[in-house]
Amino acid sequence: MQESFLAPHHDGSPLYVPQQSPSLGEELVIRVRVPAVWGRPGRVFVRSLRDGEAHYDEARGPAAGNDDGAWSWWDARVTAVNPTLRYRFLLELPGGDGPVHRWLGAVGISTTDPADRDDFRIDCRPAPPGWAQDAVVYQVFPDRFGRSADGPPPDAAPRDLPEWAVGCAWYEPVRPHGGLTPRQVYGGTLDGVRERLDHLADLGASVLYLTPFFPARSNHRYDATTFDVVDPLLGGDGALVRLVEAAHDRGIAVIGDLTVNHTGDGHDWFLKALADPTCAEVDFYYVSDDGTEYASWLGVPSLPKLDWSSAELRRRFVEGPDSVVARWLLPPFGLDGWRIDVANMTGRHGPEDHSREVAALIRGTMDAVRPGLMLLAESTGDATEDLAGRAWDGGMTYSPFTRPLWQWLSRGAGATADINFFGTPVRGVPRIGGRDLIATHTALASGFSWRVRTQTMTALNTHDTARAASVMVAGGPAVGLALAFFLPGLPTLFAGDEFGLSGVNGEDSRTPLPWGTADGASGSLRAHLRSLAALRAASPALRQGSVRWLAADADAVVLLREHEEECVLLVAARADYDGVRVPSGLLPGNWDDAEPIGLRLPGGGVVAGADGIVFSGQGPGAQAWRLPGTGPGGRDR
Amino acid sequence: MQESFLAPHHDGSPLYVPQQSPSLGEELVIRVRVPAVWGRPGRVFVRSLRDGEAHYDEARGPAAGNDDGAWSWWDARVTAVNPTLRYRFLLELPGGDGPVHRWLGAVGISTTDPADRDDFRIDCRPAPPGWAQDAVVYQVFPDRFGRSADGPPPDAAPRDLPEWAVGCAWYEPVRPHGGLTPRQVYGGTLDGVRERLDHLADLGASVLYLTPFFPARSNHRYDATTFDVVDPLLGGDGALVRLVEAAHDRGIAVIGDLTVNHTGDGHDWFLKALADPTCAEVDFYYVSDDGTEYASWLGVPSLPKLDWSSAELRRRFVEGPDSVVARWLLPPFGLDGWRIDVANMTGRHGPEDHSREVAALIRGTMDAVRPGLMLLAESTGDATEDLAGRAWDGGMTYSPFTRPLWQWLSRGAGATADINFFGTPVRGVPRIGGRDLIATHTALASGFSWRVRTQTMTALNTHDTARAASVMVAGGPAVGLALAFFLPGLPTLFAGDEFGLSGVNGEDSRTPLPWGTADGASGSLRAHLRSLAALRAASPALRQGSVRWLAADADAVVLLREHEEECVLLVAARADYDGVRVPSGLLPGNWDDAEPIGLRLPGGGVVAGADGIVFSGQGPGAQAWRLPGTGPGGRDR
Repeated sequence: MQESFLAPHHDGSPLYVPQQSPSLGEELVIRVRVPAVWGRPGRVFVRSLRDGEAHYDEARGPAAGNDDGAWSWWDARVTAVNPTLRYRFLLELPGGDGPVHRWLGAVGISTTDPADRDDFRIDCRPAPPGWAQDAVVYQVFPDRFGRSADGPPPDAAPRDLPEWAVGCAWYEPVRPHGGLTPRQVYGGTLDGVRERLDHLADLGASVLYLTPFFPARSNHRYDATTFDVVDPLLGGDGALVRLVEAAHDRGIAVIGDLTVNHTGDGHDWFLKALADPTCAEVDFYYVSDDGTEYASWLGVPSLPKLDWSSAELRRRFVEGPDSVVARWLLPPFGLDGWRIDVANMTGRHGPEDHSREVAALIRGTMDAVRPGLMLLAESTGDATEDLAGRAWDGGMTYSPFTRPLWQWLSRGAGATADINFFGTPVRGVPRIGGRDLIATHTALASGFSWRVRTQTMTALNTHDTARAASVMVAGGPAVGLALAFFLPGLPTLFAGDEFGLSGVNGEDSRTPLPWGTADGASGSLRAHLRSLAALRAASPALRQGSVRWLAADADAVVLLREHEEECVLLVAARADYDGVRVPSGLLPGNWDDAEPIGLRLPGGGVVAGADGIVFSGQGPGAQAWRLPGTGPGGRDR
Repeated sequence: MQESFLAPHHDGSPLYVPQQSPSLGEELVIRVRVPAVWGRPGRVFVRSLRDGEAHYDEARGPAAGNDDGAWSWWDARVTAVNPTLRYRFLLELPGGDGPVHRWLGAVGISTTDPADRDDFRIDCRPAPPGWAQDAVVYQVFPDRFGRSADGPPPDAAPRDLPEWAVGCAWYEPVRPHGGLTPRQVYGGTLDGVRERLDHLADLGASVLYLTPFFPARSNHRYDATTFDVVDPLLGGDGALVRLVEAAHDRGIAVIGDLTVNHTGDGHDWFLKALADPTCAEVDFYYVSDDGTEYASWLGVPSLPKLDWSSAELRRRFVEGPDSVVARWLLPPFGLDGWRIDVANMTGRHGPEDHSREVAALIRGTMDAVRPGLMLLAESTGDATEDLAGRAWDGGMTYSPFTRPLWQWLSRGAGATADINFFGTPVRGVPRIGGRDLIATHTALASGFSWRVRTQTMTALNTHDTARAASVMVAGGPAVGLALAFFLPGLPTLFAGDEFGLSGVNGEDSRTPLPWGTADGASGSLRAHLRSLAALRAASPALRQGSVRWLAADADAVVLLREHEEECVLLVAARADYDGVRVPSGLLPGNWDDAEPIGLRLPGGGVVAGADGIVFSGQGPGAQAWRLPGTGPGGRDR
């Protein structure tokens, strides 16, 4: 429905919804802006649902003659009746033959009655803590990040390994496929992470996200054998305590990674369940009566699926301060939150769906034992429905950002034929143009409330995907990083992004970090990342500003983050671009006040004319400007 | 996303999903057809969700050179893992620069990754009984349908009325507004209905839907004072027994209307709750601790809202064969189902949402005491989410059909300024063109599974709305009725439609039926209805066929219902139309085989040319043809 960028706008951000964390029953202001070229609306309404029934609140517009010229701002007072406030706008506009009506919902303008599933959402609950709102996340796969200074030298393999493990020298190639893949152990440890926290701080990372650290029978540890201790291979409990303390000393929060969908088949609980059909743990899994078959994650036998109908499982895993969920958040460990693995499948099994209960239980325990922590759900497909509601702050998902970004910056389907495109049967990563990048991002991000959207990772790649460098045109990852930091979301680096590492799949991407061997190219990537993090830290617009797309052609997109204090404009390009025009009226203030922001990427030129601003430049590249603040404030309304 | 009518198609109907009632774990065939002009797909997949995770099944296409010319049919075998199977299609099509990918979801074709919320759905549960699948519903508001032969004469008011009631002579005007409105009692009774069942049978109605018959303090009876007896004003329990028996004798099923969101403030339970703060009934409502305030339907004090967290309320109202839900379905009454009032708000109150539990309890009781009954939910807005899942067969809703139909056939916003447009603040009923009619219908019906869509009422109007005759252009209601019978759904008449009654709002529409005074105009409406019902009864395509739109301009739309035995094409027009073209390739078979179906409406002409079929004709009007059957069967695949 995105026909033109010069259209009425709302996105749920604080510019439009100043109260982001309403209580139930609270009346809040909800605003919309309408471009003058659409004509002055006769009336504007917010349609919300109250206990399932549509309700209309009329918005107040600016006093006649007091519009800001290009736009009029309208605001309504709307009561948050239910835990999720769902709403859209009805605009009554002048037409030749009487008023015409347009709806504005989360996917854009509609000329006909839209479905409620495309409504905006506001979740009524306390806001995430400030550190989470401002976070830059750095993801570490512990076996591959770094050995500690007292570990073996790089050219030696770690020793004293368990039977399943095959020790590797630090620079031995990772095997992307085959039986050896999960068994390769490189000897990274939590002390190895601690000793390199300055590296994270230097990049501007403020949250360290550790993939699992529990003992397991693989290097990825998503097949935990217990949740009671930190894997001795990683340094044990003491190493985690030391790491979290050292991180906190630097102002870096630390979150862990919890598999609640399954355990390993070597887990204490599972071994008991198989051994003793009368034990409590039998009910923790979907084990057949004869004990020979069981449900598992995507049919992988080493990952037996947990059965969340078990009250005893809930008690041990999630409920109360002695539960698995709670104890790692409390002293002496003090993790600052969890990333929940495979949240989209957790509790779902055939006729059963306990997913929302489990999420609510986890949230409830966390809020009870230590409020203000981060709770992110992995939901790799369309995460809209999983992330709706009250439990998760946000998500680790690929649909709204990573996936369309890969497509836009792809070297082409043929050149990426060895890359699996997010589990689809599509071969390679087919290219899409800038408008489709925006359309996909909008379709998949629009179902999130603003608060969820801003707590959802914008990552180039993760430990489960190929690396951007293997997918994108040369110079593409740097452009992608600019979008990751300029769009709403949690900018998330997977350790190694700053070294420009490559990888054709998730396994291949878990390359041990090339400490001490980084070349000039990765030096400039690191400088780019430092710039991006510094810009974001200094810019209220990049952290909290609303987002509008201003222009797009196949090779370049222009976006604007808007805030009352400042606005920030980004032109991102995958190739040379020429004559990308932002019409007058789309920009806040006067282009004469625009101040370039250095991005350490190929840039270009800009020509301000009577009918708009025209951008041209080199690509892959990006250029950015700071502009005056905007908003509805300060005028007589 | 509906760019062209010549596009890949699927709608969940039996032509595309032969197994409409899969069991959990069952593998079923899901088909899609692709027009030859799109190029032969390289590969086609069904993407479904399994326990929340995307899964792809490849479809098999026709053997090369064995397409049916205009289309190729593809089918996949997909396993129904969860109670609702959600899916969409991924088409890999030939492109100049390598394959291009298109998604086909419930709202149409998408060139970019769509959101899961627009997926198709299949509900895995037993099918509705045949009588429900083939139903033509006739809605009766008991006070206004007819007096019995032993009642007072039409010019007299009923006597011996309760204090709240104001007796009216049969032809006294209904007051559309004011304090007297709910108090006007015209003396219609259930025996009055029984004595006129031949009228229903004559029209081809097969389900009688009675609005509430429980005692109350209003003529509409949505404010029940008890659920234990039939209102003596309507003839008491005996009259209901006689009516249901007589209806069954004619093959007409009877469903009742149950308010589960609220009761009247004169209900036994509510009076006890107010009188005794220690009684069980206190928990049936949201009564303040001091007993002075309580929650009610949209704040109307006479309709206190029920609190479904009460286990005792559940027990008395819904659970078991002695519950309210059950006892009216059992001897001696034998109702054949319920229409549930205000289902969209039931159980929802601020932080609480018991709506799905209550629906499941009602369904469970019905299935336990007498399987194979009809259960419809009132959900007047976008009913997609309320009707998803396993409880309701379908709904009484206005969004997909009634609302866009009113707009298309409207006399214009100015001419209908006295009509409330379904609770919106829109003034009058603004006109939309044929393409927007289709877009709105598609957006709002696409969220239903096919089985829910076909059990959802297609009504011109109801007891809660203005009458179509007051909204539409002259001749419009007859065109609207044609669409009600030709589109998937439960064609539903509100008693009086056949007399062409008018009414500016729901109250005004409850006119006592003009028995014996009907003029020639209504005689032709009745004949039209008889024709439509007979066509539907004789046509597998109209009852079970898939639906495709073939053409539209502002004033005319063309739709096709397709079935293996036959297809049926309808051209419906609100005004004279000229040159509405259906391109070659959209039609099944050869136009030479088309056989006109008489519709008793102004028709027109058709010209078959090389590049398509061109329709012209008078409007408001409609014309229809029967065409050869279609489908994937019979070819070597």
